[in-house]
Amino acid sequence: MRVKSKVWIEAGGEVIAGDGKIHLLKLIETTGSIQNAAEEMGMSYRHAWGFLKKMEKRGKIKLVETQVGGREGGGAKLTAQGRDFLQRYAAFREGLDEFIEDKFQKAFS
Amino acid sequence: MRVKSKVWIEAGGEVIAGDGKIHLLKLIETTGSIQNAAEEMGMSYRHAWGFLKKMEKRGKIKLVETQVGGREGGGAKLTAQGRDFLQRYAAFREGLDEFIEDKFQKAFS
Repeated sequence: MRVKSKVWIEAGGEVIAGDGKIHLLKLIETTGSIQNAAEEMGMSYRHAWGFLKKMEKRGKIKLVETQVGGREGGGAKLTAQGRDFLQRYAAFREGLDEFIEDKFQKAFS
Repeated sequence: MRVKSKVWIEAGGEVIAGDGKIHLLKLIETTGSIQNAAEEMGMSYRHAWGFLKKMEKRGKIKLVETQVGGREGGGAKLTAQGRDFLQRYAAFREGLDEFIEDKFQKAFS
């Protein structure tokens, strides 16, 4: 037997982000492009764009800014708020799986 | 923003139990009947029975024993193994939501 878990953030009863969407943000930061980030996740650009817009709307934060050249041509990067969000999420996630795993092992061993 | 989480136990890549199925086991213990436990959860007897059989098969543990009178007539109770499983799950769950909530608040406040 093994333990599994899932954590995510909501606002107003709607999902803002979980590990998947956070990974998309990280990939935008490292690739400098929504298109490339989406490709790495096997997701369409349109799908990724929709995710970002929903996250921003629901969380009332601006996460990504697109640059000269338009949405697909000129690249994208995280805003300061977007980077801050990633850092906070990383701090939240840090050690969490290990804690859950450890608690499970102690109870079920 | 608020944090949400879900934890569950798997064996061989299949779900054995999460909070919902554990609640069903607790209700069988308190009501002494699969039928009554199922009703309290707004679930059919057939559905509850299927859950129990899957949990037992996947977890390779005998959780519930039915008593004289047959599956529906004579009541049901947890086996010693079933009670042990509930206790271990309770020990695992104890304080877990609070830990996740606290970690989230620290990161996002």
